[in-house]
Amino acid sequence: MSSFTGNHILSVSQFDREAIELVFSVAQSMEPYAKRQKRTTVLDGAILGNLFFEPSTRTRVSFGTAFNLLGGEVRETTGMANSALAKGESLYDTARVLSGYSDIIAMRHPAAGSVAEFAEGSRVPVLNGGDGANEHPTQALLDLFTIKRELQFNNKTIDGLHIAMIGDLRYGRTVHSLSKLLCLFKNVRFTLISPKELAMPDYILAAIENAGHSLKVTDQLEGNMDADICYQTRIQEERFPSQDEANKYRGKFRLNQSIYTRHFQSKTVIMHPLPRDSRTEANELDNDLNLNPNLAIFRQTDNGVLVRMALFALTLGVENLVSQYEKPVIWYSNKS
Amino acid sequence: MSSFTGNHILSVSQFDREAIELVFSVAQSMEPYAKRQKRTTVLDGAILGNLFFEPSTRTRVSFGTAFNLLGGEVRETTGMANSALAKGESLYDTARVLSGYSDIIAMRHPAAGSVAEFAEGSRVPVLNGGDGANEHPTQALLDLFTIKRELQFNNKTIDGLHIAMIGDLRYGRTVHSLSKLLCLFKNVRFTLISPKELAMPDYILAAIENAGHSLKVTDQLEGNMDADICYQTRIQEERFPSQDEANKYRGKFRLNQSIYTRHFQSKTVIMHPLPRDSRTEANELDNDLNLNPNLAIFRQTDNGVLVRMALFALTLGVENLVSQYEKPVIWYSNKS
Amino acid sequence: MSSFTGNHILSVSQFDREAIELVFSVAQSMEPYAKRQKRTTVLDGAILGNLFFEPSTRTRVSFGTAFNLLGGEVRETTGMANSALAKGESLYDTARVLSGYSDIIAMRHPAAGSVAEFAEGSRVPVLNGGDGANEHPTQALLDLFTIKRELQFNNKTIDGLHIAMIGDLRYGRTVHSLSKLLCLFKNVRFTLISPKELAMPDYILAAIENAGHSLKVTDQLEGNMDADICYQTRIQEERFPSQDEANKYRGKFRLNQSIYTRHFQSKTVIMHPLPRDSRTEANELDNDLNLNPNLAIFRQTDNGVLVRMALFALTLGVENLVSQYEKPVIWYSNKS
Repeated sequence: MSSFTGNHILSVSQFDREAIELVFSVAQSMEPYAKRQKRTTVLDGAILGNLFFEPSTRTRVSFGTAFNLLGGEVRETTGMANSALAKGESLYDTARVLSGYSDIIAMRHPAAGSVAEFAEGSRVPVLNGGDGANEHPTQALLDLFTIKRELQFNNKTIDGLHIAMIGDLRYGRTVHSLSKLLCLFKNVRFTLISPKELAMPDYILAAIENAGHSLKVTDQLEGNMDADICYQTRIQEERFPSQDEANKYRGKFRLNQSIYTRHFQSKTVIMHPLPRDSRTEANELDNDLNLNPNLAIFRQTDNGVLVRMALFALTLGVENLVSQYEKPVIWYSNKS
Repeated sequence: MSSFTGNHILSVSQFDREAIELVFSVAQSMEPYAKRQKRTTVLDGAILGNLFFEPSTRTRVSFGTAFNLLGGEVRETTGMANSALAKGESLYDTARVLSGYSDIIAMRHPAAGSVAEFAEGSRVPVLNGGDGANEHPTQALLDLFTIKRELQFNNKTIDGLHIAMIGDLRYGRTVHSLSKLLCLFKNVRFTLISPKELAMPDYILAAIENAGHSLKVTDQLEGNMDADICYQTRIQEERFPSQDEANKYRGKFRLNQSIYTRHFQSKTVIMHPLPRDSRTEANELDNDLNLNPNLAIFRQTDNGVLVRMALFALTLGVENLVSQYEKPVIWYSNKS
Repeated sequence: MSSFTGNHILSVSQFDREAIELVFSVAQSMEPYAKRQKRTTVLDGAILGNLFFEPSTRTRVSFGTAFNLLGGEVRETTGMANSALAKGESLYDTARVLSGYSDIIAMRHPAAGSVAEFAEGSRVPVLNGGDGANEHPTQALLDLFTIKRELQFNNKTIDGLHIAMIGDLRYGRTVHSLSKLLCLFKNVRFTLISPKELAMPDYILAAIENAGHSLKVTDQLEGNMDADICYQTRIQEERFPSQDEANKYRGKFRLNQSIYTRHFQSKTVIMHPLPRDSRTEANELDNDLNLNPNLAIFRQTDNGVLVRMALFALTLGVENLVSQYEKPVIWYSNKS
């Protein structure tokens, strides 16, 4: 039992450094199960309500898989067209009813604040899987967990990290949440690279500075950066006031292998919240980086499963029972 | 093994009083599992085909959860757009094929009679989860089970019950089915309150009178009623010949705390088939009743899980094995 | 462990006769589990990613059920509208991400070649559940397995088989794949009956002749055929250059009991890839054949579960462990 037991996970702001370190420690202990060196039935018989009122295939499947990996069952729903919410039911009523059908809920919904409102009516713990422009705390945690693990390979820690964030820093929910979490650590250097129209919001900049971190803001990728992490986000051209404005920046915030070599040290880890647009006109993160061992984007999604397993285990208070319910994996796997 | 084993559940008309009492007794025995005091793996390895050709999130999830709570697996489908039915396949063929994929089927379909037609082709038991305007027997059973349990708190029984039904009694499938089931009991008093345009159909009134029950029909909520149960249903204004006609009744069949206090005794239980429309213009069942301990609407949906567990167990002939396959619940729960 | 272990199943062309016989032997051994004489938990804890980017209720549920029957869990997705693929993500990226969420993947997608492309990015084995006009190997295998089993009742083998294929042989993916598989066997007689506009493609005809099989091509059902198998496929009238052209053939490639009696011997087995259009204007496979014991169309779909169970077991290398994890079935079933 920890302070997580029985509680909702709604926002990154509810985490302090100790809580994060507990999540990461449990997440790390989940790796042998996710990599199929062994399995656990600790949540055999438990039911996850995987309620994606806003569809998102990968986040939904990631939550569901995390629960299955702990031995539990998943009931789910996708979209809102046929739900009672579309007929005027309140989130409170929906929560009261659906929380009768599961032991824990993961929920995504397009409206900011909706998951917290739902959680008030829920009789079981609720994990926020994204509520519109507001929060997506499991993404922020998996990003930070990835940073921690990638840095470990180089004997570094989050304290003292230099992170470059590139692209749309204004509307990119993930970079906001990640920045907030990084404010719990020490001596972080932020280099924020974006078109002026898509700059990081002032309240995040203030939080970074209040945390005593160092901050550099620029509108172009230049010089030789010594960043440990390059966190790339997509620029959607419709964010600009006009196409002319968008054209001015086209291709300036993309990353490919030659741009990487020119601007980053050879160990800089490349991250991205995914999906990346791989169409040639996308100018985002080129496929030629697939051969670069520092491209961590698929390790991020793998880490997402570990983080979600950890949150389920902690919230349901079984984090110390997982290994007691261990069993061998008897089928073929090359994941380990 | 009971008379349920291997049989379909298609209509409330297939139940006699003894069958209902058996369902309720098994449903009652399911509560410790649903409340997570313990769990059972009696249906470990069994597969439910949860076929919702007409989408309905809560009914679908309720059936799925009930099956999971007994230890079984769920395969499901939602909607009809991509099903073979849309390509001219007969319900007989669909049933022959899909019944090869599961041990039992719960099915919803928009066409009246479709589930019975499907059942003829099915090689496994079929539970009707709603076939259009026709039947929704598990809803009727959970309503009656709720009445029984709510009355028990006051040392009363269904025999001798006074029930007020309010709202759209013409098109409300749930009040029809519930009325039919109540005809199996003794000395029930019905007070039916609806606009004349939305009055209870004559064949139901005849059934009530044939059962020797007492009946009062009115078009307004008036005086001090001594009802044990107030069953509220939604009035959809498009049911009226004109908006002028609808306006005449607006707000007259809603319930809020002050109307409740004025017309009902302090122990009258409030029921509703849900979802309720909580928008202010809805005039249905106000949110201020959420604090009223007699508001049983969420106990109804919880009871739905128990009733569906009972029907699965009875239909698959395992109702007496459930406790033999009991296991402890090792994760956090505050449901018990 | 066999040559299947850890490998993708993408095309019928990857099978030789020995591989097919292994699949069929394992499929046969799955029947007691599918018929509920017993159950197995060999894949308890394993996760199938059932990714139907093109919806197909029965194929999706068949794969899911096959995995459940082996004891495994299923995570799934239907349609593409909300997937990252719709936002420009490459199949490579999708595969890299989603293969982190399961132990094996069954996938359907509307684009020819898409499943093979996906498989290149996948870190787990991928089973092709249909990639547009290209391949649907499990359907071909279940068809051939059905032929083998139906012939066995008459002490016959696939070697020496006489098969009549009727209907749309040009666009019917199933008859192409089945023909290719039959080229691995000896002395097969093909009678191909279709409108000239919908004749079997030349490359299939060449393959049949190269295999040394005998071949008769005709545009009408005539005389007294001694076919062992009659494989019927639907003619979609929109395939013709004009409705006038379509009308010339209307009803000439349908089968009903009297046409069957006139043209086929009493033991000829009737097959169809399903769904069949049962509307009266369909002219396909009449419902009066439902009483004909040689109508094997529902045995085909049952066999599909066995073949998919076999492919899962082989691909995950547990085919020899299945019976070690046997358990009794304790619930009602009349499938055995």
